[in-house]
Amino acid sequence: MSKMWSGRFKESASELLDRFNASIPFDQKLYKEDITGSIAHATMLAENGILSESDAKQIIQALTTVKEEIESGEFEFKISDEDIHMAIESRITAIIGDVGKRLHTARSRNDQVATDFRLYVQNKSQSLSEQILYLQKVLLELAKKHTETLIPGMTHLQHAQPTNFAYHLLAYISMFKRDYERLQSSIERNSTSPLGCAALAGTPHNINRDRTSELLGFREPTLNCLDTVSDRDFALEILFNISTLFVHISRFAEELIIWSSYEFQFVKFSDAYSTGSSIMPQKKNPDVAELLRAKSGRVNGNLISLLTVMKGLPLAYNKDMQEDKEGVFDSVETAEVSLEILTKSIETLTVNVDKMEKACKIGHLTATDLADYLVKYCNIPFREAHFITGEAVARADELNIDLSEIELSELQKIDSRIEADVLPLLSLRNSMNSRISKGGTATAETKNQIKYVENWLESL
Amino acid sequence: MSKMWSGRFKESASELLDRFNASIPFDQKLYKEDITGSIAHATMLAENGILSESDAKQIIQALTTVKEEIESGEFEFKISDEDIHMAIESRITAIIGDVGKRLHTARSRNDQVATDFRLYVQNKSQSLSEQILYLQKVLLELAKKHTETLIPGMTHLQHAQPTNFAYHLLAYISMFKRDYERLQSSIERNSTSPLGCAALAGTPHNINRDRTSELLGFREPTLNCLDTVSDRDFALEILFNISTLFVHISRFAEELIIWSSYEFQFVKFSDAYSTGSSIMPQKKNPDVAELLRAKSGRVNGNLISLLTVMKGLPLAYNKDMQEDKEGVFDSVETAEVSLEILTKSIETLTVNVDKMEKACKIGHLTATDLADYLVKYCNIPFREAHFITGEAVARADELNIDLSEIELSELQKIDSRIEADVLPLLSLRNSMNSRISKGGTATAETKNQIKYVENWLESL
Amino acid sequence: MSKMWSGRFKESASELLDRFNASIPFDQKLYKEDITGSIAHATMLAENGILSESDAKQIIQALTTVKEEIESGEFEFKISDEDIHMAIESRITAIIGDVGKRLHTARSRNDQVATDFRLYVQNKSQSLSEQILYLQKVLLELAKKHTETLIPGMTHLQHAQPTNFAYHLLAYISMFKRDYERLQSSIERNSTSPLGCAALAGTPHNINRDRTSELLGFREPTLNCLDTVSDRDFALEILFNISTLFVHISRFAEELIIWSSYEFQFVKFSDAYSTGSSIMPQKKNPDVAELLRAKSGRVNGNLISLLTVMKGLPLAYNKDMQEDKEGVFDSVETAEVSLEILTKSIETLTVNVDKMEKACKIGHLTATDLADYLVKYCNIPFREAHFITGEAVARADELNIDLSEIELSELQKIDSRIEADVLPLLSLRNSMNSRISKGGTATAETKNQIKYVENWLESL
Amino acid sequence: MSKMWSGRFKESASELLDRFNASIPFDQKLYKEDITGSIAHATMLAENGILSESDAKQIIQALTTVKEEIESGEFEFKISDEDIHMAIESRITAIIGDVGKRLHTARSRNDQVATDFRLYVQNKSQSLSEQILYLQKVLLELAKKHTETLIPGMTHLQHAQPTNFAYHLLAYISMFKRDYERLQSSIERNSTSPLGCAALAGTPHNINRDRTSELLGFREPTLNCLDTVSDRDFALEILFNISTLFVHISRFAEELIIWSSYEFQFVKFSDAYSTGSSIMPQKKNPDVAELLRAKSGRVNGNLISLLTVMKGLPLAYNKDMQEDKEGVFDSVETAEVSLEILTKSIETLTVNVDKMEKACKIGHLTATDLADYLVKYCNIPFREAHFITGEAVARADELNIDLSEIELSELQKIDSRIEADVLPLLSLRNSMNSRISKGGTATAETKNQIKYVENWLESL
Repeated sequence: MSKMWSGRFKESASELLDRFNASIPFDQKLYKEDITGSIAHATMLAENGILSESDAKQIIQALTTVKEEIESGEFEFKISDEDIHMAIESRITAIIGDVGKRLHTARSRNDQVATDFRLYVQNKSQSLSEQILYLQKVLLELAKKHTETLIPGMTHLQHAQPTNFAYHLLAYISMFKRDYERLQSSIERNSTSPLGCAALAGTPHNINRDRTSELLGFREPTLNCLDTVSDRDFALEILFNISTLFVHISRFAEELIIWSSYEFQFVKFSDAYSTGSSIMPQKKNPDVAELLRAKSGRVNGNLISLLTVMKGLPLAYNKDMQEDKEGVFDSVETAEVSLEILTKSIETLTVNVDKMEKACKIGHLTATDLADYLVKYCNIPFREAHFITGEAVARADELNIDLSEIELSELQKIDSRIEADVLPLLSLRNSMNSRISKGGTATAETKNQIKYVENWLESL
Repeated sequence: MSKMWSGRFKESASELLDRFNASIPFDQKLYKEDITGSIAHATMLAENGILSESDAKQIIQALTTVKEEIESGEFEFKISDEDIHMAIESRITAIIGDVGKRLHTARSRNDQVATDFRLYVQNKSQSLSEQILYLQKVLLELAKKHTETLIPGMTHLQHAQPTNFAYHLLAYISMFKRDYERLQSSIERNSTSPLGCAALAGTPHNINRDRTSELLGFREPTLNCLDTVSDRDFALEILFNISTLFVHISRFAEELIIWSSYEFQFVKFSDAYSTGSSIMPQKKNPDVAELLRAKSGRVNGNLISLLTVMKGLPLAYNKDMQEDKEGVFDSVETAEVSLEILTKSIETLTVNVDKMEKACKIGHLTATDLADYLVKYCNIPFREAHFITGEAVARADELNIDLSEIELSELQKIDSRIEADVLPLLSLRNSMNSRISKGGTATAETKNQIKYVENWLESL
Repeated sequence: MSKMWSGRFKESASELLDRFNASIPFDQKLYKEDITGSIAHATMLAENGILSESDAKQIIQALTTVKEEIESGEFEFKISDEDIHMAIESRITAIIGDVGKRLHTARSRNDQVATDFRLYVQNKSQSLSEQILYLQKVLLELAKKHTETLIPGMTHLQHAQPTNFAYHLLAYISMFKRDYERLQSSIERNSTSPLGCAALAGTPHNINRDRTSELLGFREPTLNCLDTVSDRDFALEILFNISTLFVHISRFAEELIIWSSYEFQFVKFSDAYSTGSSIMPQKKNPDVAELLRAKSGRVNGNLISLLTVMKGLPLAYNKDMQEDKEGVFDSVETAEVSLEILTKSIETLTVNVDKMEKACKIGHLTATDLADYLVKYCNIPFREAHFITGEAVARADELNIDLSEIELSELQKIDSRIEADVLPLLSLRNSMNSRISKGGTATAETKNQIKYVENWLESL
Repeated sequence: MSKMWSGRFKESASELLDRFNASIPFDQKLYKEDITGSIAHATMLAENGILSESDAKQIIQALTTVKEEIESGEFEFKISDEDIHMAIESRITAIIGDVGKRLHTARSRNDQVATDFRLYVQNKSQSLSEQILYLQKVLLELAKKHTETLIPGMTHLQHAQPTNFAYHLLAYISMFKRDYERLQSSIERNSTSPLGCAALAGTPHNINRDRTSELLGFREPTLNCLDTVSDRDFALEILFNISTLFVHISRFAEELIIWSSYEFQFVKFSDAYSTGSSIMPQKKNPDVAELLRAKSGRVNGNLISLLTVMKGLPLAYNKDMQEDKEGVFDSVETAEVSLEILTKSIETLTVNVDKMEKACKIGHLTATDLADYLVKYCNIPFREAHFITGEAVARADELNIDLSEIELSELQKIDSRIEADVLPLLSLRNSMNSRISKGGTATAETKNQIKYVENWLESL
């Protein structure tokens, strides 16, 4: 056994440790935030006389150069640099010599990484917010075309009441509105600057944390340095916000998958957003929607990972916290591409109005309207009304028609108190339009909801 | 095999189904919210002429009676009633006859359960917020006594720099402040009334959702009924808020456990909040802190459960959503008792100032201060300063003392440029007090942080 | 604020602590295992001369009495007894006096709880295994009736190839077979006795752990006492086994829900296992299946909870481990009732053979058979065969028929090389029966699979 | 807003879809398994006359070439190939022309990916098993040196009883033994071949699944093709096995971190497996142990992800299942590097015997031995013995010594019945050696445990 094994240990201890410890393979994503943070820091140090003007100028110049090098692909990331902070510091020192090392005065890697990561999370929370707004606009455009398109409202995947397709889309618009609000709320709450907290206790240098906070676009500096270098709440928040976003995306995806089945055929994905089969030209696999549904598992995993990592950690920084980034990067990038592809899928979706409306004729969706009529207009007690309705539904089944298609004479055979004024109430469209309460499915009320969202979008 | 098995199926199909389907064993917790919601509904129905004044009066009277019956323990919960809504409706109908059934006009169980559950979550978010504020006050009182108590600031569970105990407590105060803010933000965001959304599509009745929203203390009615009866975001939010709270509680608990060990002895739990051993009088098991730490697992489980349940559910209500409550109840009750017991534990905690201060003398916590001195006052380059410091530390080790206790002559043997003005800088207390940057550990700055929190608490 | 709060602290510190610390509200479920373990322990102590014969006799008698008291409901569980172990010990001491205290010689609460909990998990793993076997028998009975019932095999919820319903059920039988095997494997692996490990280090008493292991039905005593009192792997295993079981149950439930929709109508739940609506007699909500699907979230939450609790705990026993039981109890009881109700639902399920077979005629399920024919019998290259098939499918669409219903003349218009021998291949039933490879869908091969399972069941 | 957004959509729909859908960026890890599977398939096809001997030879030759190309780094992975299966098939067709396409006869991507992934999981389960065995050997070597090294056995992080360090290590050896057994059990259970199951229904071709199963080293073919292409139990099992492994690794890591603190100083990591500080030479951060502890979160996340993805998926293949691989790859690679680095860390760990033994003198670890003496030799009732012991402990505290160091005269002052024979019992080493029960901490019994493990390792 040991021989079999010995082959595995070819790398040296330090190579192995580098591979295990180094975060540069993933934290290089933070290069932009790291350079932004360093420029703010150098600016403040110079303003406060901790760094000479000329040193600060050289340092900022070098940081700008490094940024260009990274973005042009020239920059070489080395595992031995361990993390992005060291990689950039090494490089500016290579460019401008020992002056470069002065940049690290009055800060430590602990507050630096907290600043970079927080800037990343704030920026991504904002860009995801904007993607959500764009998705809502696309949904709104589609909704405006379908305020009169009947679709069976379902509970338990069983037909329940007639609604309209715009109304259905507005449910998702409402969910995504909350996702937007959650992201914005997190941005506001976490708009505090860690820079200057140093290792865990602050610094004896005469720094100005309000100034770096301002330069970095934060509302104010954090309150307590020990907390600041130990805190990853902002990372947990974006992970949760994305998990909740995917609850909604996965529900939408599930509906799109079911609606794409042969049995439903309510919608058809464009060729660009589904995959076909060369041999069965009519077959379209809703791969995109299935992946969107599945991504929910992935982002939930990332959330539970960080919650588990942070549980029970003593203050302040522990190396465990290096496990904070990969999950956040993965959830963010999953959300970015998923919102993009969901938006595009909706933009190019074919809505099969005929199939939707035809489906409303299955399941006697206006049975409750008949019962309501009996109570309201014939003054029949509730229980009896239910019984009569049951008989009417049974009769419709015998006739192999939907209750919305039954003739007056049939109804009157069941109960002679029923009159001609019942018929309009049994129509699917009338039924849908009768639900005029706030938030209801009537076309007019649906249009109110659209207006509400439009006003809200304009107000942003 | 089948014989062995057959014994299991003694209960009838309907008993089995009742046991599986019924939510009344747990949703009876919602009785208060259910009655509050019903009273608001009846009031509005009467105002809008859907219910006669006298019917409304009778119904409201009966609801009040039922509430008293439940609170006095007279009320009998029956599994056959299935859920709390039916149980209360049955009872008021038993009291006032068929009039009771009119209460259900223009609503459905779907919006009713959404209303009850949301009211519960809003109320509990508020009471948990208040418990957090009280905990913060207790922590603040303790902090005020210890702004000069030295304690080793640690990273990686290794001594790093001298800080003070108040400063350490302020880290937790800061965490709990964010927990408070998250709960308040959720309350504000979810302050929308589901009542009147009915099954999924609104209602044809001329109801006034703004009125019931106002009566129930919500900001406004929800936008879209289909979304409303399908939405459990508010439940996910409280679960996440509690999970994050327990990240902080578990970290505090871990520190308290470590600090209670024989090796540390920084704190001592009062007898009331630890368990002892009759035979080892000095032994105190920090059971409470251990349970507080462990509860993190429980609340994370509840969060992941609901995220999993909601994933991929088609609109609108599906029976799956009945699985939403038990986890929320459990997390809420876990948070309630945990905050209570954590608060009491802190109130009665003995802080061992001597042990904390003595611990600061291990690990040469002022080594960085020496290096800083060499750079700043002796104009020695950084690398050389590090090397000299290394030698001084090694010498202190040889002498079996801490660097803060070294004599000037020893230092001068290592480097003659060192002068007497170094000594105050090597003192632990001076080192702690030197970190005067905003958020830093200097006693004066620590007091600023206390002031900041006090102002904030007063402003609420 | 503090006034508002003060109302909350009505209970005394000790009441609060009892409520927080005590496990008796849930661990009373272990009474049977606790008594069984104690009887084995007393028996061994007497055999080894540590307890006198008469003391042992008295103790065992008292334990038997307590068991009867508990099962008859006479026994009063008091929160002040803290846990089931103390409750039982107190009671036997009340019955037989100080002799009762001798039972605790050479054991501690740590090994006692490990023994009780392990016995519980072993017993429940066995009874769940038996429930799974019974479910498989019920599925097998249903399968035997449907080896020739066509049903569209799907991928991506899109029709793909004709299969038979027995074949589909065999997929679930195979899954449940693995669930059975996992439970049995865990039983075997964890069949080691913790009894006699005492607090964490063993005991100086001359005990015989092999004997108690034998009396309790374990294979052998555990190897190392420190590990034994710290180990909850067996609990994690049953949680995982149940989570995996619910992956399968939730998939089956999802299919049953979709199959119950108006659009599919493949199956109909019996009235006893669905809920209806008095007003829409044809409506049946598949509540049971929805709850079965949702329970997946619950059991996953329990798994993640315990994984989180156990992470990073130093040896040996920590109070955190008291959080091990509730989740296991909940997952076990969820699995018990779910298997019971799933089994009953299947036993009473109506299979709509017509709808299943009719659905096969949608989607040109034999398109691949036509392509295969062209390659195999007409020697046409693969790509060309695909192209021709595409044309045939398009023609069928024009004619508004399924490819399985096309006439020879239509095919020959597309390609004259096609001859009459193609027609049988395009028949749905022939297509299903053509897949004769091991594990395939041909009726004959399906019957082989049934036989395989029957043999396996008999071999147990 | 829309303008801001428009910049994001630079890539074409198909590029976006490729990026979202393609699995080749991660499933290229399966190249070896894919080629192995294809060679077995081609071999069987030729044996059964479905492929000519010469075609099979060419195909196998080409597959071997492709493998070499991949391993030498020549092979270019293109996103447009979508997955590793297509990438390899395209390449062999490029090498040998249309003959290459015949390889795909009688199989589909669904059974191919199931085969590749299962082979990967089986192989990795075996190599992880071997890493675990090697780790156990290293632990066993260390244990053999420390069967007489005293260390305080703890509960609640409080000193409880004296044990020895070998005994403590044997607890971890026992845990890792169960991890090994779980992996082996999974390998055995999942040793069934998916190859030949085709899309979901088997194939009409006259294939021999037993033969490919044998060629690939599986026990037998799977039972039912529909289940086979839908099944990811084997992936869930390895994820769970790794999560449980990390429960143990994280516990060990936690202890190593605590033991490395200044307060404990039981162990010291070698420089190669810790990180230091140039300025504080005595400081060693246990980074490696912290990362090992944290990885628990990561692997738990992967487990919950796949459980969530698989929940409620209808049969058979859905694109959701493409999300199965990344988490498994990540958990496997995390386990590989973690086991490697843990093993190396242990091999190079310095054990501070003095500190461990000295620590035993804190906490009066032999108090229970005194109580036992009073009961056993002085015939004093249990309660009174406890009381006397309490007084003795209090006296030792006054004298500022440990109970193990107390003089006989002091004890006799407390109770004159105590005689000289008590002293050896109060010695820490004697106390440890007194626990001779099976699995106990006595050195002799510890050696038995070592022997047991050695025999077990030899038996493999």
